[in-house]
Amino acid sequence: MAAKGTQKKQAQPPGLRELLRIPPGSDVDLASCDPAGAPAGPRNKKDGLADIARMGEHLADLQERLYAASAGGDRRRLLLVLQGMDTSGKGGVVKHVIGALNPAGCRIRSFKAPTEEERGQPFLWRITRALPKPGEIGIFDRSHYEDVLIARVRELAPRSVVDRRYAQINCFEQILADDGTTVVKIFLHISHEQQRRRLLKRLDNPHKHWKFNTGDIEERALWPAYQEAYELALERCSTRTAPWYVVPSDRKWYRNWAISTLLLEHLTALDPQYPEADFDVSACRRHLLEGD
Amino acid sequence: MAAKGTQKKQAQPPGLRELLRIPPGSDVDLASCDPAGAPAGPRNKKDGLADIARMGEHLADLQERLYAASAGGDRRRLLLVLQGMDTSGKGGVVKHVIGALNPAGCRIRSFKAPTEEERGQPFLWRITRALPKPGEIGIFDRSHYEDVLIARVRELAPRSVVDRRYAQINCFEQILADDGTTVVKIFLHISHEQQRRRLLKRLDNPHKHWKFNTGDIEERALWPAYQEAYELALERCSTRTAPWYVVPSDRKWYRNWAISTLLLEHLTALDPQYPEADFDVSACRRHLLEGD
Repeated sequence: MAAKGTQKKQAQPPGLRELLRIPPGSDVDLASCDPAGAPAGPRNKKDGLADIARMGEHLADLQERLYAASAGGDRRRLLLVLQGMDTSGKGGVVKHVIGALNPAGCRIRSFKAPTEEERGQPFLWRITRALPKPGEIGIFDRSHYEDVLIARVRELAPRSVVDRRYAQINCFEQILADDGTTVVKIFLHISHEQQRRRLLKRLDNPHKHWKFNTGDIEERALWPAYQEAYELALERCSTRTAPWYVVPSDRKWYRNWAISTLLLEHLTALDPQYPEADFDVSACRRHLLEGD
Repeated sequence: MAAKGTQKKQAQPPGLRELLRIPPGSDVDLASCDPAGAPAGPRNKKDGLADIARMGEHLADLQERLYAASAGGDRRRLLLVLQGMDTSGKGGVVKHVIGALNPAGCRIRSFKAPTEEERGQPFLWRITRALPKPGEIGIFDRSHYEDVLIARVRELAPRSVVDRRYAQINCFEQILADDGTTVVKIFLHISHEQQRRRLLKRLDNPHKHWKFNTGDIEERALWPAYQEAYELALERCSTRTAPWYVVPSDRKWYRNWAISTLLLEHLTALDPQYPEADFDVSACRRHLLEGD
């Protein structure tokens, strides 16, 4: 029986986290996940956009709390890892979802092909240097997963080296979690046909040509190998500590809705609190009122 | 006489740049600048906010062009330097003005008291490491100017060392400009009384206590010395290459309006262009249409 003064929480539908998460240890078959699907949430674009706008305010509020909490010694932070094929919308998520947050509290890093200096270091070196600080939300547009994706498909490292990286990544992410980082890894799942449409659209618009790279077409030819490499990464690195989420991304509004929702669920679970004053508030008031 | 087919540009009112700029070589008397003034622009908050929203879209468009241009080899970028007393609104500008931009193209750095590692290096070392890359908009919340402001007032370095920094800063900013960086330096000018009100407001709201620092009261007691240090910095470092702008900041909406406008004027003057395709567009189209 609920004690007087307490209230039972309203029964909540299962969160999107549960629906989109790759259960640790399970097999992954991307072909069976519909990139145009909508496993939960609004059924049309109009409702989706309205929901995204509403969540934006909520996200900004939680972000401020997280940032404020760090001033009181709370080491917690969040790292959003975005992975997906070209045109899957990693940049769009940064613009439309992260754009709702206070940029002062975001640490965004886009990982390209490693520089010569980076190649001279262990693969997690450049990642470590880009991690969010306490109170921040870090966003990785591509990440250390490239070292088991393009590195595997393009054989940029010996197979044995790539093969041992999965366990290294799990160990690395466990260390981050132990230090207070919530790691949210998102695979933006698009179809081969949707990529064709988006690449053609870039070609049709001269203002989008700068986003186009002839290398994109070569990578596209390796689509099956990439899907397989993603399946392996998702199978081997979806852990209890740092699970992978598969977000259907053929429809941009649904992708943005789902990622806003995942962010909101994780930040809500963190429940960051404004720190209490560690100084004498009334003495400060007096000082200010009595001074010049 | 205008040649056929050309049109005379409509006469434009002098830009805010001209109105707010400290003319190089001039004396600066901050007491004569009204922190609650509105030298140009909307006369009330409602119009101001509408104007800011309108400019936000325009700014985002120019930012995308600047970013895109860098993909075509354009090295240009912009660095916004925000300086002002506590509560003058540096963080508010990042949230409300920079918040309208794509966070992927912004490089924001907030400078606190230097770390031990930073103190072991020349004062411009940490600044150099935080500079925007081509195509980016860099935002400094405090900057190298702290080394002639708090460093002067608090005597953190010998007077002779502080005195030679002004010329060093001018030299440094000239190097940035020569490499394609538009340096926009903004002093957020608030009154002593307005600071009192804002500090009291922070004390009144437990959710704002984390922003409060008892050190702020000690710094406030040195107000006249800080104003003098600012006057010196503005006099000595407002150059043709990198002028200082004084923005009346007692009213938050006016401050945000003025800084949006200054950004817009500078980006419009840069007139960044989408780069032309350096690949065969129709061959790529064909490839995509014929492939799987």
